[in-house]
Amino acid sequence: MRTSSRSEVDPFIVMDVMEAARAAEEAGRHIIHMEVGQPGTPAPEGARRALQEAMAAGPLGYTVALGLPELRARIARHYGEWHGVDLDPARVVMTPGSSGAFILGFTALFDSGARVGLGDPGYPSYRQILSALGMQPVGIQTAAENRYQPVPGDLPEGLDGLMLASPGNPTGTMLDRDALSAMIEAARERDISLISDEIYHGLHYDSPAVSALELTDEVYVINSFSKYYSMTGWRIGWMVVPEDHVRVIERLAQNLFICPPHASQIAALAAMDCEDELEANRAVYAANRALMLDGLPKAGFDRIAPPDGAFYVYADVSHLTDDSRAFAAEILDKAGVAVTPGLDFDPVRGGGTLRFSYARATADIEEGLARLATFMAARG
Amino acid sequence: MRTSSRSEVDPFIVMDVMEAARAAEEAGRHIIHMEVGQPGTPAPEGARRALQEAMAAGPLGYTVALGLPELRARIARHYGEWHGVDLDPARVVMTPGSSGAFILGFTALFDSGARVGLGDPGYPSYRQILSALGMQPVGIQTAAENRYQPVPGDLPEGLDGLMLASPGNPTGTMLDRDALSAMIEAARERDISLISDEIYHGLHYDSPAVSALELTDEVYVINSFSKYYSMTGWRIGWMVVPEDHVRVIERLAQNLFICPPHASQIAALAAMDCEDELEANRAVYAANRALMLDGLPKAGFDRIAPPDGAFYVYADVSHLTDDSRAFAAEILDKAGVAVTPGLDFDPVRGGGTLRFSYARATADIEEGLARLATFMAARG
Repeated sequence: MRTSSRSEVDPFIVMDVMEAARAAEEAGRHIIHMEVGQPGTPAPEGARRALQEAMAAGPLGYTVALGLPELRARIARHYGEWHGVDLDPARVVMTPGSSGAFILGFTALFDSGARVGLGDPGYPSYRQILSALGMQPVGIQTAAENRYQPVPGDLPEGLDGLMLASPGNPTGTMLDRDALSAMIEAARERDISLISDEIYHGLHYDSPAVSALELTDEVYVINSFSKYYSMTGWRIGWMVVPEDHVRVIERLAQNLFICPPHASQIAALAAMDCEDELEANRAVYAANRALMLDGLPKAGFDRIAPPDGAFYVYADVSHLTDDSRAFAAEILDKAGVAVTPGLDFDPVRGGGTLRFSYARATADIEEGLARLATFMAARG
Repeated sequence: MRTSSRSEVDPFIVMDVMEAARAAEEAGRHIIHMEVGQPGTPAPEGARRALQEAMAAGPLGYTVALGLPELRARIARHYGEWHGVDLDPARVVMTPGSSGAFILGFTALFDSGARVGLGDPGYPSYRQILSALGMQPVGIQTAAENRYQPVPGDLPEGLDGLMLASPGNPTGTMLDRDALSAMIEAARERDISLISDEIYHGLHYDSPAVSALELTDEVYVINSFSKYYSMTGWRIGWMVVPEDHVRVIERLAQNLFICPPHASQIAALAAMDCEDELEANRAVYAANRALMLDGLPKAGFDRIAPPDGAFYVYADVSHLTDDSRAFAAEILDKAGVAVTPGLDFDPVRGGGTLRFSYARATADIEEGLARLATFMAARG
């Protein structure tokens, strides 16, 4: 049997780092993990308790395809509380992670060969999912002076769709209200279908992130319980779509997924009321971020995008290397710190960038920064 | 924003039945559910206990994309125990339900426009998922005398792929070793990539189902914890692929899903050792099946495919109606029994067929059969 052309997606380069880190740990070394893109904390205690009770009470069979009505209603309420948006729960679609939302959203909006713009640097799977679905990802080089976010002047001709991400991965930078408005307007003028990835919402350290739903209903908004709600492995996310797209999405979801994981929906509903625990997690990230913003420049990583949110710092190291993959391997080997080469996020400029994650415990961040400082001083 | 052409998938007609049944129940009527495609039982007690312990022990973050190594190894062992096949665990890929396996498998094998054959009647989502991925489903009318399973002579020219399902949904019929061998050979000769849906394995009432892996390594085999393991809502399945396809599948899975639900993988691993509970469930289906095979013909539904496995009986009612949708509505209204119109499974002949499920409690089956007999007697 042959494999298809569309299945030829790039490997994640960070996987090599993770495998090397694993091998080093197996050999007895202690490694600090600044490569990981997920919290070290579990789902909130209240979420786990709710699932335990639900497992004792009923069979947890299929839910309806769009998800538990009470969860969709709770998310609609959340947009009122966080964003001042009066949202019809019928427009909220539960998905198997934001991954499921990308598959569902791209399928609903685009046909084979459609051209969908993505800001580089960005989450690598946007590109790979589009390719796997037979669509055409179009990388848009963003400027450091625009905080690595696209501006209307960056848009190439002939786009059918556009992905935005605020806060973005790997940079953590946000589009503020004006910048987001400008992009929404540019997409509207050019008849470009807009998808706003808001999965790092809730993880901000100054102003909260603006949701595209505050500015327009003509957008697909994608979010997840993975980051702020600390539920990566539960694979539960959501999407908000225009009212007249709900029936199309429902039919696709019935066929593509049947339903999102029932247990995860139960846990997610309870997680939304675990504010104390979630805010305590955020306080840890805030402390870690302050350490990073102090320690990385002191160590010699001083060309960094302003990390408004998420739990990443993206550093320009093009004055130090043009091979971020080799540089990351060197940092792992000599400093015992795992970091992500920028090539996963930006095929053009990523040879000169690194992503540092501060999602883990504060003691790990302190130790990692100390090791990086020693490494860089020795490197000279 | 416009929706895509590929998103124009057909609705499930059974949804109308389910909505009408729900409305009837809300109005105070008692309805027997013979339309459902899932067990009424929960995940095995041992599976739920294992998850409870895991939730107390660790964060349940992302697993690796192909799934927990111990679960993949356990499934490989299962093929030794059930099928006498010595399977390398590296070929086992955990997926978010068999739904995720279809998305992953079709994407790995086929490009836009590829023609993939499906036996009609069959699981409706095969067709819809293929369309949503930009591929071309090709319905193959199977013959009642072939137990509604395709035979080599049924295959049209120019197929790139072929789906087999044994036991099949909606019929419950199986391909025995000779019939399956003949199809594998026919696919091999014509260079057709073969996918074998084996999600009803374990639910047999005479000989166990034959796995395609007993006969060839050149096949994608798809299975799930939904049916025999009674874990529909947990969305956990698996796929076995040829050795030289594993890396392609891994990269796709990393991007399309990140990983299957961690909690569900924990529960699934424990479920595989809950044989007593699972066999007790099967004994209920066996008793229900015996009631159906006696009661349905007595009620007047005597043109039925031999239901070797699964928990369905597919009945030819073309002598009673050419509008199975209206007939199902009439049965719901007058008998208080919800059944599935065949149109969901066979766009050509489904106007003259019905699917009866016997997945629920035996008392419900007895009551349902009594109601059907009364209804048919009154109908005359």
